[in-house]
Amino acid sequence: MKLWSALVAPNPRRTVIYVMEKGIEVETVNIDLGAKENYAPEFMAKNPLARVPVLEFDDGTCLAESKAICRYFEETHPEPPLMGIDAKDRAFVEMWDRRMESELMGNMTGAFRHTHPYWEGRIEQVAAYGDICRRNAEEKMAWLDGELADREYIAGDAFTIADITAICAFGIGRVAKIRIPEALTHLTDWHERMSARPSVIATGPKPK
Amino acid sequence: MKLWSALVAPNPRRTVIYVMEKGIEVETVNIDLGAKENYAPEFMAKNPLARVPVLEFDDGTCLAESKAICRYFEETHPEPPLMGIDAKDRAFVEMWDRRMESELMGNMTGAFRHTHPYWEGRIEQVAAYGDICRRNAEEKMAWLDGELADREYIAGDAFTIADITAICAFGIGRVAKIRIPEALTHLTDWHERMSARPSVIATGPKPK
Repeated sequence: MKLWSALVAPNPRRTVIYVMEKGIEVETVNIDLGAKENYAPEFMAKNPLARVPVLEFDDGTCLAESKAICRYFEETHPEPPLMGIDAKDRAFVEMWDRRMESELMGNMTGAFRHTHPYWEGRIEQVAAYGDICRRNAEEKMAWLDGELADREYIAGDAFTIADITAICAFGIGRVAKIRIPEALTHLTDWHERMSARPSVIATGPKPK
Repeated sequence: MKLWSALVAPNPRRTVIYVMEKGIEVETVNIDLGAKENYAPEFMAKNPLARVPVLEFDDGTCLAESKAICRYFEETHPEPPLMGIDAKDRAFVEMWDRRMESELMGNMTGAFRHTHPYWEGRIEQVAAYGDICRRNAEEKMAWLDGELADREYIAGDAFTIADITAICAFGIGRVAKIRIPEALTHLTDWHERMSARPSVIATGPKPK
């Protein structure tokens, strides 16, 4: 099998971190989104929505959507569990992961896409919408700081996919110049802990 | 346990359809979103993000996020399977469900929120963004029509959560005056088949 990825984007990065945290060896091919390689006919045959990541099986079937790929690896490589350990726990991890997607990833990606020069000419940007996303992201950072006051990880006492989603959201948020305010000490501490993980370092921006 | 819901909104409706398709009996309480009951302190104690659905367990813990609630019921009531039947199948159902969320639900909800009078004064509307969502939804309906040319359901040969997500997306799309063009015959046929299901009829708009 082969994982089609691009570390500059938060969703493929999420999948690559997931695979590293599981200790799974998968051949990974990074494509160049800036050069629009995702719109090449041979890539769109794998995913007509022209997005990474895509997990290509040896029989040629292609699985798109980062969460779907993570779920496949969760089932085929259960250890360490990154999506919870029983029905109720798995449901709460899903809740926290969805919240990280909608409140952080969605808003930070919205701010990036609608206000960053990279997207000029690539999409129809609406700066007013990007600004709303930015304010929503800032508001939700404050909420998350409170949630992290009495626990180490987003979904509770264990590192899960919700932490991976959140750290990837902050990665793209950084590109959109969204920073965690110093006053949010719990969130800042969580971010420092996550940023020290080998999987996060290996997939993050390279030192210049 | 108790399910806090509101059938006018697509995500709680998704959960209620899910529960009905599973044949699960759950006490359901519909709150009035128009009257902002979701912002009442007693509701926000259940979900600080002020959203339905919320599944309240007998011990008082509250599970938010529609997909998380569906997943909990999938694990505790496996029949009929609505999220796939083995690791690979479950991953592809997840892929299709995510696609229905991002391409249909996301765009149709975006068009509704940013262009419909209901949201005037409730959120900061950006009509230009709503228009982009509408065009994206129309483009993705054409893509989905092609996908449905050779299969009965969104994710393959079985009815799954992806069909539920999609039918709920079309429900809110209808409020935003997004219609399936007649030329999209495969999508139109799928929509008619789904609209005939008792769970969809029971949760849809009441005849006037």
